[in-house]
Amino acid sequence: MAKKQKTFRPKARVPRGFRDRLGAEIAAEREMLAKISAVYEAHGFDPLETPAFEYTDALGKFLPDVDRPNAGVFSLQDDDEQWMSLRYDLTAPLARFVAKNFDALPKPFRRYAVGPVWRNEKPGPGRYRQFTQCDADTVGASAPHADAEMCILFADVMEAAGIARGDYVIRLNDRRLLTGLLETTGLAGEGEAETAQRLTVLRALDKLDRLGEEGVRLLLGPGRKDESGDFTDGAGLTADQIDRVMTFVASTAGTNEETCNRLAEFFAGSETGMAGVADMRAIAAQAGALGYAEDRIQIDLSIIRGLEYYTGPVFEADLTFEAKDDKGRPVRFGSVGGGGRYDGLVKRFKGVEVPAVGISVGVSRLLAALEFQKKGEADAPGPVIVLALEKGQMAQYQAMAAELRAAGLRAEVYLGGSNFAKQLKYADKRAAPVAVIQGSDEREKGEVTIKDLVLGAELSKDIEDNKEWREDQPAQFAVKRDDLVEAVKNTLARRR
Amino acid sequence: MAKKQKTFRPKARVPRGFRDRLGAEIAAEREMLAKISAVYEAHGFDPLETPAFEYTDALGKFLPDVDRPNAGVFSLQDDDEQWMSLRYDLTAPLARFVAKNFDALPKPFRRYAVGPVWRNEKPGPGRYRQFTQCDADTVGASAPHADAEMCILFADVMEAAGIARGDYVIRLNDRRLLTGLLETTGLAGEGEAETAQRLTVLRALDKLDRLGEEGVRLLLGPGRKDESGDFTDGAGLTADQIDRVMTFVASTAGTNEETCNRLAEFFAGSETGMAGVADMRAIAAQAGALGYAEDRIQIDLSIIRGLEYYTGPVFEADLTFEAKDDKGRPVRFGSVGGGGRYDGLVKRFKGVEVPAVGISVGVSRLLAALEFQKKGEADAPGPVIVLALEKGQMAQYQAMAAELRAAGLRAEVYLGGSNFAKQLKYADKRAAPVAVIQGSDEREKGEVTIKDLVLGAELSKDIEDNKEWREDQPAQFAVKRDDLVEAVKNTLARRR
Repeated sequence: MAKKQKTFRPKARVPRGFRDRLGAEIAAEREMLAKISAVYEAHGFDPLETPAFEYTDALGKFLPDVDRPNAGVFSLQDDDEQWMSLRYDLTAPLARFVAKNFDALPKPFRRYAVGPVWRNEKPGPGRYRQFTQCDADTVGASAPHADAEMCILFADVMEAAGIARGDYVIRLNDRRLLTGLLETTGLAGEGEAETAQRLTVLRALDKLDRLGEEGVRLLLGPGRKDESGDFTDGAGLTADQIDRVMTFVASTAGTNEETCNRLAEFFAGSETGMAGVADMRAIAAQAGALGYAEDRIQIDLSIIRGLEYYTGPVFEADLTFEAKDDKGRPVRFGSVGGGGRYDGLVKRFKGVEVPAVGISVGVSRLLAALEFQKKGEADAPGPVIVLALEKGQMAQYQAMAAELRAAGLRAEVYLGGSNFAKQLKYADKRAAPVAVIQGSDEREKGEVTIKDLVLGAELSKDIEDNKEWREDQPAQFAVKRDDLVEAVKNTLARRR
Repeated sequence: MAKKQKTFRPKARVPRGFRDRLGAEIAAEREMLAKISAVYEAHGFDPLETPAFEYTDALGKFLPDVDRPNAGVFSLQDDDEQWMSLRYDLTAPLARFVAKNFDALPKPFRRYAVGPVWRNEKPGPGRYRQFTQCDADTVGASAPHADAEMCILFADVMEAAGIARGDYVIRLNDRRLLTGLLETTGLAGEGEAETAQRLTVLRALDKLDRLGEEGVRLLLGPGRKDESGDFTDGAGLTADQIDRVMTFVASTAGTNEETCNRLAEFFAGSETGMAGVADMRAIAAQAGALGYAEDRIQIDLSIIRGLEYYTGPVFEADLTFEAKDDKGRPVRFGSVGGGGRYDGLVKRFKGVEVPAVGISVGVSRLLAALEFQKKGEADAPGPVIVLALEKGQMAQYQAMAAELRAAGLRAEVYLGGSNFAKQLKYADKRAAPVAVIQGSDEREKGEVTIKDLVLGAELSKDIEDNKEWREDQPAQFAVKRDDLVEAVKNTLARRR
């Protein structure tokens, strides 16, 4: 054939900020999500799956402008000119779903959802533009009972996922405490400068566990210079204001009930603050009555949670165990999920407030923490590989693999040619625990050779003399063809 | 606060051609996909997950033109001007992945993938623009062994999903037989008219099981008028050509081996045809040796499979059981998946041929068939509902729900207020099997009432006298508070 002029060959690349995932990671995530879903279901939540796309106006974004149609979300225009966007979380589609089906739904409506979301943001190390979310929400139930249930659910989820009691804590705060604090500290002004000042105050509080009291005082006041010499502007509060904010923060001590008592004193006269304290007290009491005390559910006034739409209690699941990386440096996993009450969410569609509260598990962070804890444990082994040495015996090899599968094992026949060394290399690449070998010698004797690849790899570390190794082959043995399945099973059992 | 002028209220709509899915359907699909995935894994396939987006050039589409950037696929331009598209299947991303990681991969490379794909096509009844695919592919192994394995895998998948042996058949054909047929029938011309004629011939063959031999002969020749009077143009073949095509089709009779013998005679002298026959014979023989005979894997020369890229064996999983709809009309489910060999797929990137073969399960069609077979079986019941009658007893109710969950049951406390009738209505909407009731009377006696909602619904059908019903309440009974879990478990056990 005459060669064509110049063929266009696209480069095989993953789009920027996206990634491929393989075997072990997928299996780990799948297992974790199944466990979390089972907890959601046990608590009466039913699964809901909405499509990847929503109409852009339903997501609560403005119509994309022609120059930047993708700010924050991935958007495109449908044939009929309507703008659609890929969902950036699972909450906005829930709001749309509830608004659409409001009358038909049982109320309260409990649903959970698991699936990918997309963010059109600048990717960075560990920051991808597609990731998995795993949410549970109760729509149509007001505080504090549904909120108490969310805290309990969150704790159950952590333990089901594999985080031991004592290695996590569900931190609890209430937006109305923060609002009340700002109101009663003279920080409720409506101008742009005041709004910016409020944000700086909240950001300073958020850093309490990292910077300590002294650092936060600086950030509330004149500003702070960090170790590298970088200066962060402060909120410019007066000394009295700073004292009041720090008194608020210091309310958290002892039991949740003691904290609530202190807060009730602090907020005497502030309607907003007292409403927050009342719900918080009820949540903590209800959780406590069920045995979820301060070791699992703890009031923490420095929990802010970024999202604008929270209106009452907010939660954060934090990992608290001490961990060290390979070089002995401490590793903190911190927040692996959050949530809260957002009574205004459906209002955009319906014009009325519908109370709602939910949690969202930070899937990739929780998974990373679980992987860290499991460090040292090997991944699940690959399949048993039946070598294919004689071309005419393929059906025999397939029969061996089929027998192994029928016994509940993963097994496959090598399909890439008859080269022996290549087949063993393949088995190694697949992390196969066992290779099953039947050449013409074995076949004539009615036997198969079982090669224990895990033991083989261990032994080969200690053996210097390649010749000795080859002659002894201590990690393999022959059995009668009929005993194949039992022999493989026994070999695998020894490896556990 | 002063009211804003006019608030924009978006309509709560699902984008055109997309849909929401709820509880039972999600659970059924999840269960089916888990079973199929387990079969893939047992056969040595590892999971691979690629992102929703690929670069448009990597998908094998031309760059979207400005007027129709979304022809067939959903495409958008990234910040850096590169065009990205949502994947329209799982095979194109596999080709990109293999090309990208070629040297590092074990070869043959076996992977399976499960996930959503998107088509920018006109939606219709049952045709959505997002749906799930579930594929297994072996890359780097040439025919016929990997192909035989795919047929066996396909049969195993059907049975694992719940289709009984005898209710499905894996149909087998080979592209080279069709090519050989066209070549040896004088239909291999390169002009546009000849290409169109070939397509008409293939389309006619594809209709064999629907139209029978007579109908296909008409479509191969002058054309055919259907019952409604619509006329379909024929391929315009000569009588000799038609005879030859029909002789080819008639080769399928008796065992697969007999069919292969007839085909070998038919294709004597055609290199292309004979290559197809040889692989087909090997596939059928290998499957047969493993007990997968004609009742499960059957040569069928009318199987065409639409995709251009198949180069050798092609497969189709067909459901064969007789079914009737509610009105007694026969229902045919037909094809629930297909696949084949496509040795040219990675060539676009690498310039070399890499042999590959795969199958794709038609998830929604297979699910529909399974649902049909299960008709009459009820969906899984909802959670046990603990009613919340006294405001001050919330922690008690939560404790009951927690005890039920600890015993492995789904259970929740009603969180929507204290109205009794509303709570029972909610339990009904949730398909709750049991309601747990503790009002002040029961509480003082240290009891709870167990209400069997399934039995209650059955009994209420037979009872005319509302008063009698109310007084007797045969479907509910009181037990000691400590016996709650056992009583609920016994009640549920009676319902199975």
